[in-house]
Formats: sequence, structure tokens, C-alpha cells
Amino acid sequence: MTYCVAMLLNEGLVAMADTRTNAGVDQIATFPKMHVWEKAGDRTIILMTSGNLAISQTVVSLLQEGVGADKRTLDTTPSMFDAARLVGEAVREVFRVDGDAMQAQGNDFSASFILAGQLKDRRLRLFQIYAAGNFIEASAETPYFQIGETKYGKPIIDRVVRPDTSLTEAAKCALISMDSTLRSNISVGLPIDLAIYRRDTFKLALRKRIGGDDPYFNDIRRRWSEGLRAVFLEIPDPDWKV
Amino acid sequence: MTYCVAMLLNEGLVAMADTRTNAGVDQIATFPKMHVWEKAGDRTIILMTSGNLAISQTVVSLLQEGVGADKRTLDTTPSMFDAARLVGEAVREVFRVDGDAMQAQGNDFSASFILAGQLKDRRLRLFQIYAAGNFIEASAETPYFQIGETKYGKPIIDRVVRPDTSLTEAAKCALISMDSTLRSNISVGLPIDLAIYRRDTFKLALRKRIGGDDPYFNDIRRRWSEGLRAVFLEIPDPDWKV
Repeated sequence: MTYCVAMLLNEGLVAMADTRTNAGVDQIATFPKMHVWEKAGDRTIILMTSGNLAISQTVVSLLQEGVGADKRTLDTTPSMFDAARLVGEAVREVFRVDGDAMQAQGNDFSASFILAGQLKDRRLRLFQIYAAGNFIEASAETPYFQIGETKYGKPIIDRVVRPDTSLTEAAKCALISMDSTLRSNISVGLPIDLAIYRRDTFKLALRKRIGGDDPYFNDIRRRWSEGLRAVFLEIPDPDWKV
Repeated sequence: MTYCVAMLLNEGLVAMADTRTNAGVDQIATFPKMHVWEKAGDRTIILMTSGNLAISQTVVSLLQEGVGADKRTLDTTPSMFDAARLVGEAVREVFRVDGDAMQAQGNDFSASFILAGQLKDRRLRLFQIYAAGNFIEASAETPYFQIGETKYGKPIIDRVVRPDTSLTEAAKCALISMDSTLRSNISVGLPIDLAIYRRDTFKLALRKRIGGDDPYFNDIRRRWSEGLRAVFLEIPDPDWKV
């Protein structure tokens, strides 16, 4: 499975993806799910993928090599809205080519995407794109999107992340959200890809791969686990006679 | 949807169920999902249900009025293993009668059950029963079962509950687990039904309905929320330059 999350903040954007893929528990592998298109000073676009790996890899290749007869790519798309439509077109192109054959084999056409980024003189935007190629955009009320195994890591985001959350605090929250997911779903796995983008800079502020030996991530995991247990123990037991 | 959880402990058993049912978000209602068969001194059996309400209510009625030609019920079943098989038989009987017609209407035959209890001179046991009528039993390594919306409330149970956890501490954990679920899934709702059984007593130690005005539950919710935020804030932010 997969866990990807992106948060749209006043300061910028935090994006995080795990790297584990599986075709059954007997076939586990590591593949990147975060892809970046960047021209310093002109654009930074991040695409994260979930679902069938053959679909998502083909979509990424199309977005690099060109979608449609006129070969449009994320390197040249004129806006983030256009970029979201381009990803949608790419998914539909894969469905046209592979959909029937996949269905004949009993495979679902499962794919979902998080697209985020900013082009020069335009707004920073965050989209979630479905297998049908249609999409939604994040808002101030819901400033984040998740794809894949979303449930374990959602409560901490709902409690913490607001548009005015700082980039570093949001990254900390994303790491805790990822930790909760890693603990509960073995098909989500290390290493993690993390990207942080500061608004109006058109260049990633940080791109980092976090493995099991990362001291900061291990410190977070330990403190979070101990902290939760401490809060639990501090809450008084009920005074019911049982 | 539904959230039910039961924990098998050295001291006894904690069982909890929400009461919200829905057929789409425009049709919300309150129905009990926890059912108790008790003869003081002889047996205490708890059944919790998830899935299609028509199926689960019919299963409960069959278990009260009699399953099969010889009309066996949970009032007279000779063991918990036999009780689990009886629930399985009841589900299969509903499937025989309603399964084809439901399928013709495009309805899934969805049903799952948690069965727990103890008969005089026998062990306290905890089972999870599937729509096919087959079942599994809890163990010391995994001393709890959940049905329905299981993911939001699972992490805290995994962190806290062991067989030697006390009944009151386990009940506190179940309430926090329920709180996490209520916050994240609007189709799980108050009031909550809670039952606590102390091993070898053959009578519930506590049976309690907890609504939105319960002071202890509200105190837990507030303390847990504040505690989580405090732990989050205490963890140092990363020192990345972004």
C-alpha cells in the first residue's frame, strides 16, 4: 500500500510519501512515489502517487515524455490548474490503453494522486486527482490531502494542522502521522521521502530521504510513543465499582 | 457505520459499541448493537454486531428464538465454542433466506460479530465471527477484537492493552479508542454501550450507556485532546533550514 500526505500552509507546502510497494505480502519492494518537476526560479511541481504501480509509473512517464498528440509535460504546463488537468489526461490515456486488459485479468484500475506546486507569478496550489482524471483542490478549511492508507495518520493532522502552522511544525506533524501509519499497516514502509517548499521561491527548500537510522525521526517516534502512554496514564481511571 | 471493540483480560472482559446506524448520510438512526444473554450464576454472553442492520437484527432474533430445527439459543448453548458456532449457523440461515434477493438488489451481504462470554465451569472466551459464519478466537498476543470502523481507534489499543491491563484501565482505553473513532467518522455516534465482566462471576459487573452529557467521558475527551497537543508541542521541531 502507500501513504502520502501534503499540507498547504501560509508559509508553503510540506509533502511526504512512503516508498513501499507490494503485490501481496510475498512481493514487497521499494519504489519512489514522490516525483518533482523543478526549474529554479520558474516552477516547482510535486506529484505523489498511490494505487497500481504500473498505472502510476506510466502516468509519471507520460508527464515526463508528453501527454496527447502535442506532447505536453509538467515542464511546460502554463498553470497548476492546467497541470492537474494534464495529470487527469495522462490517467485517462493509461485507462484507454490498459483498462480493458486489466479488467479482463480481474485487476481494479486503482490510482490516485496528490499534485502540488507553484509556477512563477501564480498561486501555490494543492490538488487531489482521482482515477477518473477529475480532481479537487485544498482549501483553508481542509488544507491537506492524503492518499493510500489515510486513516491511521489522519487524527493528528486534524488536531494540529492549520494554514498558519509553520513549515517545520507541519513537517513534524507529517512525521508523526507517518509513524502512526507505519506502526499499524505493514504495507506502508520506510524510507520516507520528504519535500518542503517555501511559497514564492520556485525551488524546494528541502528534499530529504528519511530511513530507519534517522536520529530526528527516531527521536520523534520514541517521544510520541512515550508521550501518548504518559497522557493515558495521567487520565484518571473511572471510579466505577467493577 | 459502527465501531465495536472487546478486550479479553486476565481480570475479565470489556466490551463497547456505538449505536449509530445509517443508510446513507440522509438516514441516520440509533439502534443497539450490543446484546446480552445472562443467567446470573450460569452464563454471561455478549454479542456485538456490525454490517447490514437487517442481517444483524435477524441474527439476534434467531439467537433469541432458536436456530435450526431444534431451536437452539444462546440461553441454553452448552459452551462458548458452541455459542460461536450457533451465531455462525444463524448468519448462514439469514444468508440462505435473504442472500439471493439482497444480491439481486445490489446489496452486499455484510455482517460481522464479536461474541464474548463465559459459562459456569468454563473459560471466558472471545470470538470474532465473519459473514460466512466462520470465526477466530482472541489470544494473549492479540487480546482484543474490533469490528466496523476499526482503524482510527486501533493505535491506542495497540499501545496500551495487554492481558494484565486492569478492567478499569481497559475501559478507559476503549473510551479513548471510541473518541478517536467518533471524531474521525461521522457515521459512528453516541450514545455508547459499555459492558464490563469480571472473570468467574457469571454476571455483568457494569452495564452502562454513555451519552454526550457523561462527565467522565467528556473529561477523558478533553484531557486526551489537550494531552496529545501538549506532547506534540513538547517534541522539538526539526532544525532543518527551510
